[in-house]
Amino acid sequence: MSDEPTYKLIYFNARGRAEHIRYIFAYTGIEYTDERIPEEFWPEYKDCKREESIFTFIVQLSAMPYKKLPVLEIDGKPVAQSNAVARYLARKYDLMGKDEWDAMICDELVDTLGDLKQDICYYRMEENPEKKEARKNQLLNETIPFYLTKFDQIIGKNKGYIIPTTTTWADFVFAAALENFEYMFGAPALDKYPAFRALKKRIHRISAISDWLIRRPFTNS
Amino acid sequence: MSDEPTYKLIYFNARGRAEHIRYIFAYTGIEYTDERIPEEFWPEYKDCKREESIFTFIVQLSAMPYKKLPVLEIDGKPVAQSNAVARYLARKYDLMGKDEWDAMICDELVDTLGDLKQDICYYRMEENPEKKEARKNQLLNETIPFYLTKFDQIIGKNKGYIIPTTTTWADFVFAAALENFEYMFGAPALDKYPAFRALKKRIHRISAISDWLIRRPFTNS
Repeated sequence: MSDEPTYKLIYFNARGRAEHIRYIFAYTGIEYTDERIPEEFWPEYKDCKREESIFTFIVQLSAMPYKKLPVLEIDGKPVAQSNAVARYLARKYDLMGKDEWDAMICDELVDTLGDLKQDICYYRMEENPEKKEARKNQLLNETIPFYLTKFDQIIGKNKGYIIPTTTTWADFVFAAALENFEYMFGAPALDKYPAFRALKKRIHRISAISDWLIRRPFTNS
Repeated sequence: MSDEPTYKLIYFNARGRAEHIRYIFAYTGIEYTDERIPEEFWPEYKDCKREESIFTFIVQLSAMPYKKLPVLEIDGKPVAQSNAVARYLARKYDLMGKDEWDAMICDELVDTLGDLKQDICYYRMEENPEKKEARKNQLLNETIPFYLTKFDQIIGKNKGYIIPTTTTWADFVFAAALENFEYMFGAPALDKYPAFRALKKRIHRISAISDWLIRRPFTNS
């Protein structure tokens, strides 16, 4: 273990864009610091407006290359973009499938899931009540069923995996996403996607992951 | 060359989300079909509503796994997500830098540029005139200068490259993006970012790329 780099994951106390990275660390057993910044202090953390602070993280402005989180410090070097970081770890710790084709399919699925998340984000950002309602209807009746049906078909065909039948970082991304979807839409709304749910169950039953689920800090997003 | 897979890139007659993939093909000299679908026929192409058509591409619904373009067919297998595809080609044809760290930095920069493009997209989607004006001001006075200054510093430090001093797929993404920014904001607005512009010039002067620039179809986006 001493040959491993030191890792520090900096994010909020949330699953959000970091949970799949935490799954990778849990699954591989690689040690890391799971630094969680109270969201209410983020503006000053980001811009380092206060020169003194009881919050030691205030001085870590250099860790925020683009004023966004998460950031993973690898041997002290800060790297932004959750999927860039996850993909790097996945390659290093053999969570990319068996070849470059599999690696590409992981990327394809993760980015397609990202498109769905982006559509949900557009809905949340919409402030005009009429348009928000229209977006919501489109999301619930078209966008979400379209994507989730596709994902469910792929995962079903691959026996509960994104890449048949080897655990990849994409599985972690999808398991974490389903947890959020269940929180957002209610678990019964996801009953129509049994293969997607089976993927999540499979991941959650891996002992290193179930250990993580028990000891991770409580968050509601 | 006969050992290469057959590639068909399916997109609109636009640079958009496909031009960096075309740069990779141009740079490597790998043969591919550059299929451009007239945008006005996209709805029926996507949903395959018409059973007969003079447009042969109508029958290629199976090539559109998520009803989005671009799609790259590799030996007939359709793969979505422009960056998944570009990264796969980059790895295959040695455009990822010298090691996994470089590959991650390419991803980090490409995704961060993606964040900026997303912010520009939010502005374009905004229909409320007051909010649109506010978004525009924030973009022009804060967001764009913030990101472009960062990129310019990195590229300047790396002597005109994203990864010092080896051409990577990220260079192609950035060169194509700068071309679009110059189109959107006017070339003089980018004078403040000489290193970013130098990167574009360097890429455009590579003879395989300059050949491509001469022979590529005219598009205005």
